[in-house]
Amino acid sequence: MSKHLTHTKDLSKEEILRIFSYAKEYLDEKKRDDLKGKLIINIFFENSTRTRSSFEIAALRLSADVVNLDVARSSTAKGETLFDTAANLDAMGPDAIVVRHNRAGVPKILSKYVNCSIINAGDGAHQHPTQGLLDLFTLLQKWGSLEDKTIAIVGDIRNSRVANSDIELFTRFGAKVILVGPPQFLPKTHLPTTHNLKEAIDQADAVISLRTQTERHANATFASLNDYATNFKITKDLIKDKDIIIMHPGPVHRNIDIADEVLEDERCLVLTQVKNGVAVRAGILKYLIG
Amino acid sequence: MSKHLTHTKDLSKEEILRIFSYAKEYLDEKKRDDLKGKLIINIFFENSTRTRSSFEIAALRLSADVVNLDVARSSTAKGETLFDTAANLDAMGPDAIVVRHNRAGVPKILSKYVNCSIINAGDGAHQHPTQGLLDLFTLLQKWGSLEDKTIAIVGDIRNSRVANSDIELFTRFGAKVILVGPPQFLPKTHLPTTHNLKEAIDQADAVISLRTQTERHANATFASLNDYATNFKITKDLIKDKDIIIMHPGPVHRNIDIADEVLEDERCLVLTQVKNGVAVRAGILKYLIG
Amino acid sequence: MSKHLTHTKDLSKEEILRIFSYAKEYLDEKKRDDLKGKLIINIFFENSTRTRSSFEIAALRLSADVVNLDVARSSTAKGETLFDTAANLDAMGPDAIVVRHNRAGVPKILSKYVNCSIINAGDGAHQHPTQGLLDLFTLLQKWGSLEDKTIAIVGDIRNSRVANSDIELFTRFGAKVILVGPPQFLPKTHLPTTHNLKEAIDQADAVISLRTQTERHANATFASLNDYATNFKITKDLIKDKDIIIMHPGPVHRNIDIADEVLEDERCLVLTQVKNGVAVRAGILKYLIG
Repeated sequence: MSKHLTHTKDLSKEEILRIFSYAKEYLDEKKRDDLKGKLIINIFFENSTRTRSSFEIAALRLSADVVNLDVARSSTAKGETLFDTAANLDAMGPDAIVVRHNRAGVPKILSKYVNCSIINAGDGAHQHPTQGLLDLFTLLQKWGSLEDKTIAIVGDIRNSRVANSDIELFTRFGAKVILVGPPQFLPKTHLPTTHNLKEAIDQADAVISLRTQTERHANATFASLNDYATNFKITKDLIKDKDIIIMHPGPVHRNIDIADEVLEDERCLVLTQVKNGVAVRAGILKYLIG
Repeated sequence: MSKHLTHTKDLSKEEILRIFSYAKEYLDEKKRDDLKGKLIINIFFENSTRTRSSFEIAALRLSADVVNLDVARSSTAKGETLFDTAANLDAMGPDAIVVRHNRAGVPKILSKYVNCSIINAGDGAHQHPTQGLLDLFTLLQKWGSLEDKTIAIVGDIRNSRVANSDIELFTRFGAKVILVGPPQFLPKTHLPTTHNLKEAIDQADAVISLRTQTERHANATFASLNDYATNFKITKDLIKDKDIIIMHPGPVHRNIDIADEVLEDERCLVLTQVKNGVAVRAGILKYLIG
Repeated sequence: MSKHLTHTKDLSKEEILRIFSYAKEYLDEKKRDDLKGKLIINIFFENSTRTRSSFEIAALRLSADVVNLDVARSSTAKGETLFDTAANLDAMGPDAIVVRHNRAGVPKILSKYVNCSIINAGDGAHQHPTQGLLDLFTLLQKWGSLEDKTIAIVGDIRNSRVANSDIELFTRFGAKVILVGPPQFLPKTHLPTTHNLKEAIDQADAVISLRTQTERHANATFASLNDYATNFKITKDLIKDKDIIIMHPGPVHRNIDIADEVLEDERCLVLTQVKNGVAVRAGILKYLIG
């Protein structure tokens, strides 16, 4: 039975900490033989240079072979179902398939059709577990523990798979989570919510700013982005000299999600997240198929 | 002089059996050093996730380096001829170029312009020798020999490069081949033909169902596909409990080429073909450039 | 401090000769471990099968890992700036980023934002230093020295990054350079220029024919290409039995830039340039990150 990572809940706290112990080792960015002879297929039904290359580099650093499939041009266009595509790839004998898809639940369903490990690289507005894990890793790296910490998640939370994965992990590891955004962006939730960014920041030890998903809001206009920024952009004025961490899953909408001056501030860990992302994904691969 | 594989007839029976002996070994899907230091370029002028990744995985398993060229975006668009493209790639020193093209004969012509091996990954409606070889391998794996066996090939045979490669190989290895399809899909041939699928299946030890090439029939409609399916879909009712093998080069048009219930039947070897395809292509690479 | 190659002037004569000594060794096209454990990212904002695969093969021959980014589909389309894209890739820990962009100066600017080496694979009409270096290498391979040699560069010099890199290197290594083309293709220059190809060839020891950049001339017509060819195509009649070298960065517009009969002549080194290109790029990688 292959292990899968389709949802953050697929992993226990102990499994996550084991992945993080691998990831810490991998932060040195050295080439290792840990996955020599293993084969990983990346199949991205949604484009993502960033996540795809993070997975590819993670795999190459551990000496796995990587095959990237350009799905816009694939057999799915020749009348093949998603599941036949997956079954066919699986028949070629990979150890893991990394899949991104714009429909929630696709990785979970695929995991029932294949013998190899399925890793969810983002499914619709549902889950992005590897992003959640690298965010958690980055916070633990700074703090050691999430107990007694308050984390504000800001932006289009209702449409954010990153928020879903972050919330599950942060709360499980003992943090208090506050959701911040305009009413139309807030989900139904038992968590504390607010429309007041300043109030949230005053309470928070870390802020996760999310990407304004302009491509998922057909009616998004420059005016509406500007309105959003007026109320929810992270500015220097809001964080002043406070001891706080600013994170963002990227790509950042500069001066809409986060002000330039904050992006250059050392409290902003956006590039640390990217670096950690490769190490955490390598740790995940090691754990699942190593 | 490099060896090429542009047509099934490029290989003698002895050469084919030698390739198959390599392939049998490679079915364990282990990483080997057989082609370490060799370079293979995949250049697909027609898209094919499936065949391209099969070749790529085959090469990686033997530790060859692989470069994939995205030809829709290539210099051919900058006014370069196909032959200049090939000569240029060849000048970079690859050991083999794997080429798919929508015009019959392109791999053969290219083989005269280059120093490396040319492998035909499908040229128009002409030949698909690696598919033919993996089909033959799959049948021999089950039967040991094709002598006294009858194989029915069903579908758009006139436009099928797979059928051409299969027919040449199956008859050469001693099988009787029957061609089955509506009149407009049958080629001029000395082989027995029929429009009656049931009659063919009753005589056959194996059925090769072909993909309905909707993209090559400008006037194909849903109605015409349904008409096709009514008469030529492989159903459980047609094969009942008969000892028979069902194969298809993929991607399958579910419930047009083959019924769902047959795809799930253990007599249906579609995924075995895919698995064998990687091993046979590795065997071909080993034979040509090893 | 990482070393960069954004302009031919980034390299001293001594550095160039050191790169060429590596390249000479690499002409045997053998796989080496010189860059084992190194990671190179190719990010091409302009398509180029040829240059991209030359870099990729160079890196693979030295056992580096290579990640290719398909930028048409990248985060830059999600509202990310070029510099954030570069900073993000850099955070993943590559040793070098090879970049092609249609805007002059992009590689230079990027080199200020990253920790890894930046290699310019062509920026607008500005520079194409690796092409310049492989052209120089090819001439030195034939001649030993450029002293007392005259090199005619023919074509759309004003829009040619190749010409810019060639001119800087050829003159620095002691050659006399003549620029040849119709008035609208000639730049402002202190170099000798002429509209008379025959006159230039009579004086020249080598001719570099440039690609007619049809895609950069919105109003280019077949008629204007034919006019160009009438006056500037390299024909057998022009070079007769003269001891001369004909080169072209490719892709060649056959019978517009160079006549078929000349392309087949052994004085025409187009394919030698391609072969040398891989070795020179491997030498550059070795020098910058080895």
